[in-house]
Amino acid sequence: MNSLGIGLIGTGFMGKCHALAYGSVKAVFGDVPDIRLEVLCDVPADKADAFADQFGFARATATWQDLIADPKVDIVCITTPNKVHKEMALAALEAGKHVHLEKPMALTLEDARQMLAVSERTAAKTIVGYNYLHNPAISHARKLIAEGAIGRIVHFRGMVDEDYQADPELAWTWRATRADAGLGALGDLGCHLVSLATALVGPVESLIAETRTVHATRPLDDGSAERRPVENEDIASALVTFENGVHGVISTSRSAWGRKSYIAFEVHGTEGMITFDQERMNELRLYQNRGPFGEQGFKTLLSGPAHPPYGQFVPAAGHQLGFNDLKVIEAHEFLQAISQHRPAVPSFREALHFEAVIHAIAEAASGQKRVFVK
Amino acid sequence: MNSLGIGLIGTGFMGKCHALAYGSVKAVFGDVPDIRLEVLCDVPADKADAFADQFGFARATATWQDLIADPKVDIVCITTPNKVHKEMALAALEAGKHVHLEKPMALTLEDARQMLAVSERTAAKTIVGYNYLHNPAISHARKLIAEGAIGRIVHFRGMVDEDYQADPELAWTWRATRADAGLGALGDLGCHLVSLATALVGPVESLIAETRTVHATRPLDDGSAERRPVENEDIASALVTFENGVHGVISTSRSAWGRKSYIAFEVHGTEGMITFDQERMNELRLYQNRGPFGEQGFKTLLSGPAHPPYGQFVPAAGHQLGFNDLKVIEAHEFLQAISQHRPAVPSFREALHFEAVIHAIAEAASGQKRVFVK
Amino acid sequence: MNSLGIGLIGTGFMGKCHALAYGSVKAVFGDVPDIRLEVLCDVPADKADAFADQFGFARATATWQDLIADPKVDIVCITTPNKVHKEMALAALEAGKHVHLEKPMALTLEDARQMLAVSERTAAKTIVGYNYLHNPAISHARKLIAEGAIGRIVHFRGMVDEDYQADPELAWTWRATRADAGLGALGDLGCHLVSLATALVGPVESLIAETRTVHATRPLDDGSAERRPVENEDIASALVTFENGVHGVISTSRSAWGRKSYIAFEVHGTEGMITFDQERMNELRLYQNRGPFGEQGFKTLLSGPAHPPYGQFVPAAGHQLGFNDLKVIEAHEFLQAISQHRPAVPSFREALHFEAVIHAIAEAASGQKRVFVK
Amino acid sequence: MNSLGIGLIGTGFMGKCHALAYGSVKAVFGDVPDIRLEVLCDVPADKADAFADQFGFARATATWQDLIADPKVDIVCITTPNKVHKEMALAALEAGKHVHLEKPMALTLEDARQMLAVSERTAAKTIVGYNYLHNPAISHARKLIAEGAIGRIVHFRGMVDEDYQADPELAWTWRATRADAGLGALGDLGCHLVSLATALVGPVESLIAETRTVHATRPLDDGSAERRPVENEDIASALVTFENGVHGVISTSRSAWGRKSYIAFEVHGTEGMITFDQERMNELRLYQNRGPFGEQGFKTLLSGPAHPPYGQFVPAAGHQLGFNDLKVIEAHEFLQAISQHRPAVPSFREALHFEAVIHAIAEAASGQKRVFVK
Repeated sequence: MNSLGIGLIGTGFMGKCHALAYGSVKAVFGDVPDIRLEVLCDVPADKADAFADQFGFARATATWQDLIADPKVDIVCITTPNKVHKEMALAALEAGKHVHLEKPMALTLEDARQMLAVSERTAAKTIVGYNYLHNPAISHARKLIAEGAIGRIVHFRGMVDEDYQADPELAWTWRATRADAGLGALGDLGCHLVSLATALVGPVESLIAETRTVHATRPLDDGSAERRPVENEDIASALVTFENGVHGVISTSRSAWGRKSYIAFEVHGTEGMITFDQERMNELRLYQNRGPFGEQGFKTLLSGPAHPPYGQFVPAAGHQLGFNDLKVIEAHEFLQAISQHRPAVPSFREALHFEAVIHAIAEAASGQKRVFVK
Repeated sequence: MNSLGIGLIGTGFMGKCHALAYGSVKAVFGDVPDIRLEVLCDVPADKADAFADQFGFARATATWQDLIADPKVDIVCITTPNKVHKEMALAALEAGKHVHLEKPMALTLEDARQMLAVSERTAAKTIVGYNYLHNPAISHARKLIAEGAIGRIVHFRGMVDEDYQADPELAWTWRATRADAGLGALGDLGCHLVSLATALVGPVESLIAETRTVHATRPLDDGSAERRPVENEDIASALVTFENGVHGVISTSRSAWGRKSYIAFEVHGTEGMITFDQERMNELRLYQNRGPFGEQGFKTLLSGPAHPPYGQFVPAAGHQLGFNDLKVIEAHEFLQAISQHRPAVPSFREALHFEAVIHAIAEAASGQKRVFVK
Repeated sequence: MNSLGIGLIGTGFMGKCHALAYGSVKAVFGDVPDIRLEVLCDVPADKADAFADQFGFARATATWQDLIADPKVDIVCITTPNKVHKEMALAALEAGKHVHLEKPMALTLEDARQMLAVSERTAAKTIVGYNYLHNPAISHARKLIAEGAIGRIVHFRGMVDEDYQADPELAWTWRATRADAGLGALGDLGCHLVSLATALVGPVESLIAETRTVHATRPLDDGSAERRPVENEDIASALVTFENGVHGVISTSRSAWGRKSYIAFEVHGTEGMITFDQERMNELRLYQNRGPFGEQGFKTLLSGPAHPPYGQFVPAAGHQLGFNDLKVIEAHEFLQAISQHRPAVPSFREALHFEAVIHAIAEAASGQKRVFVK
Repeated sequence: MNSLGIGLIGTGFMGKCHALAYGSVKAVFGDVPDIRLEVLCDVPADKADAFADQFGFARATATWQDLIADPKVDIVCITTPNKVHKEMALAALEAGKHVHLEKPMALTLEDARQMLAVSERTAAKTIVGYNYLHNPAISHARKLIAEGAIGRIVHFRGMVDEDYQADPELAWTWRATRADAGLGALGDLGCHLVSLATALVGPVESLIAETRTVHATRPLDDGSAERRPVENEDIASALVTFENGVHGVISTSRSAWGRKSYIAFEVHGTEGMITFDQERMNELRLYQNRGPFGEQGFKTLLSGPAHPPYGQFVPAAGHQLGFNDLKVIEAHEFLQAISQHRPAVPSFREALHFEAVIHAIAEAASGQKRVFVK
């Protein structure tokens, strides 16, 4: 395989992020095929044209089916609103294309399961955009845990918050609907936390949960006095039992003033603790019960070349990776998986578990019962 | 009332803290009666003698009943192990003495209820040692919330951790037993967090919960190979519903390596957020959704004279109060309540609610059901 | 020596701090003689009376000479404005009393030298109120350095700032005058930093420096439009050479908005670094070049019983000492020195060096030349 | 101008950074001409070939003169060792090419002056790689200062440290020589701090200074026991007077264990303070003396779309820019300057001042005298 062609659907937040990632992944890592930015899709057509020019794609289209059908496209990146993920991903898979899909996979777990089933009967590779997993600080946390640096894991706590739905007078949008957005904070944010929890502790077995809609209605953006109901959760929390028996606490809010990209967790072990906060994404904090008491304390590990693949970006420690760099690492993982004929991480299979957990949280909260994640 | 005599039972961690508090409360605040340190009780007698000399008490005894019977003792401070709290407190109340009791009130909720009942048919005043409530930073948080600085409260999260039971090979003690210690992390730590949650958000209505015993057995301290079971929880977490409908998350661990006095919380409001961590007890963090976006951020309020009664200790901001200073403020609250013939905060009545919550957590976890706090 | 009588001159910020310290030092430490709070002096007499009652002193006076002459007074604590330090200290020494003097010793170096000379021909002990030296975190830093934990010291940087003179429209007071206050920020704050620098690195040999008066004039507080000149420095900085050749940077400001008790330093060694900030006085940060690169980082050591004498205050780590606790440790050091017939640290001798450095800074700045500290 | 061709000399730390920047600048910003990555130069030729393939350059060469002579190259990026900056930059300018030069401009101030002179008689644009200037947090600090958010500036303090020369047994290299490296920590790090100080406060008028070589000799890397002298400074500090009279403190070390990319400063104003640390490059701290005392404190402003051009990278606040993103902004500034026929910031003219300051520091230290920056 000498080169791979990219077809990107969507030009928003994540669309641009994908464009930047595939545009620089070879320069950063070297060990990947040439990348051809072939087709960019958005509507209307002139928007697609303008962004194709900006992002450096060879062609533009307003018809995503054409992008998928393009023989020069090997990888289809889907960064569109959640409700069309399924249709696009299935079409791409059926066309034999590798699929780089933004999270969540779909609005419902049933849809996600169907997508997994299709992906597993094709030779195509899949990856889902759980980008925080690819932070070198997180990889280092996983390495430390695997090496026993904090002993046996006994407890996990995680929180993921933003404030994009904190303002009570923010206008009502499709995000507030079950039909178009599916879950609320769980789908936007909670699944990211689950991806990290799973990577650090293991799969989730069962849970009990609560959810809340902080702002019951929101005003229409049309100058009228009308308000429409918010149908999904602003806040969700769960007490989870991992398959290995570890007890965990998970909480998310999209209405948390001041939190911009707060993905914070603590992993408690029998010999130490690891903590992290995405708002300081280049820092991992490690406590180990070693040495004299007076010299024990939380150590801040500033990401550097000792935490691969940081060194591919900057050869000097502490210089800071950024959010967009995580997508470059994700793209690299996908390209490596394709070259090596192995599943990428996280493929639809792993991602399905993350999303099964958030749907279980919603179900446990509405049914006021323990739900087992299947 | 020209002066008040103190009888103190116990000379350990909290005993010394009480001795220092009553020994300095008048010097710090001025507006209280003279304090006479009358009787100190501990066993054996020579230990009581030695500490009476050190702490400046006029007399010592190894018989707590004598202390309570002493006519010069007006206030009985009880800082003994939890299992004798009830007997001592009831005796002191029956003798007409004011009672300054360390938390938790008792091993069981029934005992605590009986203690409240007795206290309410005497003229004596009671206060329970929920000292973190008296931190000027906490008082300021309450003031900010009352003033609407962060709008309507919509969510609470709190954690309280220490690592005194983190070492798997720590010897087995009475702390591991239901009979002598009652609850585990909930009784030692969790109730403190509940006291803060209640102060900031309001009483708790109901909850669901999980608990874990991290270290199932512990070795005996006698050189044998025997290990005994740990009967109470190392970790407990709950999803609580406050009476005002607010959803909260509460979690505690006594096996959390690296956490020394971690009592951290977040109060989410519709217009801002307040966060705090007792390990930096002189700092309160406040986010408000005011002014231009580019100038919004979490502000660190360093405790100072603008946060009463900080100024009674130091007239300059940022100079730092310490743990022992909180007990001085607590003693002052008790003395003021006695002088003003009003209930102290928190009296047995408020404390009973805090402890009802932790017992409800234990019950919800063991019964795998929602428990309403009565 | 069964007991020691205290005479305290002054009831302000530091006066209260001394009263609290001597009122609790035996209860905290145990291993000291009984302390008698004998005489409190302030003017007018009724103020002295009121504070004697509040602080628990047996007698009050408005005449400091009477306090010194009182045969029951063994230790004279001087917490009055700087300009009367010399006269009071000399009188107390001549009367054979031990002297606990607040910093700075005197307005001029010549006066301080005279005070040292007198102290050294009496049997009396002296200590000067460089309280930050007594922080267990600082003592631990000294121990770490002595043990070679960060190798050979190669660089020191320190800053000490407050904002009590930051407001341009703050009224003119005696603090602005050479005659009554002597130095400005250097005398109030800078000398504290020098005490720490000296303790950590060693004595200072020579320096070059700059000073600035930020607010050239200040308004009178009498409703007039008159403004008077500020005669001493708001900001001072120096590049110092320690006697061991180490290069250091020292800077102080009393006009630094937001800084409340900022005494921050870094000690750079050939094998690590130690940093500290008094606004988080229970935290010491330590970096050591040991172990794998990926696990190196600044470790936060939270003060605890492993850092004596923290455990005398609280037996559990991380619970936080406060500003007033430092004075208790200082009083304990003084009482131990008296009992053990050894010099206290810092006596007039050490303190003289601290103050020689700040006067050298002022001289170097005004003369635009290198000044050697004598 | 429809497109601009890039010739990049060097493929190391900064070479890769430039390649990534020019490879993504149009995708990030949109408003620039098409960028053609034309020629990459390094030695030996096969290294140049390999990196040209990785970075996406059309051609490779081992002869930098050929790169400059290439008619398709419009912008020459020079990221080679310092000692060849001058020759390459002059050649590029004489060839009429725009020059994007890494800092420092040259080994000596004389050379840098000559480079400026040449640049000012050509129509070519220049920019020097003072990348930290382009951080949106720094731009916001400048905006705040310009708006008077912290009043009149009265003091500046800055430190810039790394630990790449902290290990005493690190092998001797050309970095230790005056002939090949010129200055030490001042040239590598100090000039970055000066660039920020100047941007925030203004040009520097004069200074006094000290320098130290921490490790006098270093071992050869050839297995022999031979050690060679380190000829330039490991540490340098200066007390500077800005042209507007403000007093500043500047200090740098390349031997500061634990510091990875520490560029920290404080700007003190009459109404507030701003602080920053590059190791948390997405956070700006702001204190303002506004509102009630009890609600004043340092506010942490997390970079976001309100701080342009952050939003070009990520449309959501707090998601974090990284080190490499700063070079993209720098490249954008250069492209805009070229398009708009205006000088870029910082051009050779501004950069010359930054470097005049570091040379003045070296001169003041060696001559033990005040040096005026010319």
